[in-house]
Amino acid sequence: MDIKSFIRDIPDFPQTMVIFRDITPLMSNGEALRYVVQKMAEPFKGADIQSVAAIESRGFFFGPCIALELGCGFTPIRKKGKLPWQTDSEEYSLEYGTATIEIHKDALSKGDKVLLLDDVLATGGTISAASRLVEKQGALVSGMVFLIELDFLQGRKNIKVNCPIHSIVHY
Amino acid sequence: MDIKSFIRDIPDFPQTMVIFRDITPLMSNGEALRYVVQKMAEPFKGADIQSVAAIESRGFFFGPCIALELGCGFTPIRKKGKLPWQTDSEEYSLEYGTATIEIHKDALSKGDKVLLLDDVLATGGTISAASRLVEKQGALVSGMVFLIELDFLQGRKNIKVNCPIHSIVHY
Repeated sequence: MDIKSFIRDIPDFPQTMVIFRDITPLMSNGEALRYVVQKMAEPFKGADIQSVAAIESRGFFFGPCIALELGCGFTPIRKKGKLPWQTDSEEYSLEYGTATIEIHKDALSKGDKVLLLDDVLATGGTISAASRLVEKQGALVSGMVFLIELDFLQGRKNIKVNCPIHSIVHY
Repeated sequence: MDIKSFIRDIPDFPQTMVIFRDITPLMSNGEALRYVVQKMAEPFKGADIQSVAAIESRGFFFGPCIALELGCGFTPIRKKGKLPWQTDSEEYSLEYGTATIEIHKDALSKGDKVLLLDDVLATGGTISAASRLVEKQGALVSGMVFLIELDFLQGRKNIKVNCPIHSIVHY
């Protein structure tokens, strides 16, 4: 299936000189949605994953679907202040300033094998902060999966975790 | 399955005198997650739904899963400014002030049967705004599904759409 044909390019969003890859046309097509969910889950079947942890908000589109495919639970990683209970948090750099993501303190157990998920791998800053959150809880990042990888930003180089990294489409 | 046993009560979140129903323990359990997804999809199998439209952010946990169960597409309804392309928008009242939600202008086709989804039915303000968004596009709200319904807020009374409304757990 030609996944890119379901992804719409939006120039200058959220800022000038950026081409945003809009996945809503893909999500709106039942067959394309099923295809990418299966493609994202496939490499991690048999990897004994205990939780799929996905990052707010577009990571939430796929996290629970992949968890169902793998027969495990789902853990949300959210922006600061959104989770209602006690949290661990990690800061990361943006182009200007910083951002913070959080996970519930009881989200994962020691030794849990975790699959980290986001819609896009760009510079790798967010997913690296997410992997620090997982490790803070004594759990293990056993894989990372993205729908889209922006190869020209070389995000993989910034990921210090030694695990399989899998992306469905590359730009 | 006793779903409520997987839901954690958080007093005074996001404000004093409110008990927040935290569904993250439910999401983290693979069996409970599978159970509620099936329970949410079940009443709408055979209803010829063309799209499941879910509301940011916790609606995204379930929207694509239910779409896969029903064999249809998924449409995100997001907070103002988050969708990258042209949008329709609807405002609704909060306790203090207003909020706006948006849908892509090409999200739905005329005559589409749509299942609206959110994690919680409280006063019904958000889901009513979402149903106006669907109707703006000439599509039909064929059902609404919630994981949790707060019966004491009587949100059903405020829903003007004549369609089946289904909630998995009630408080």
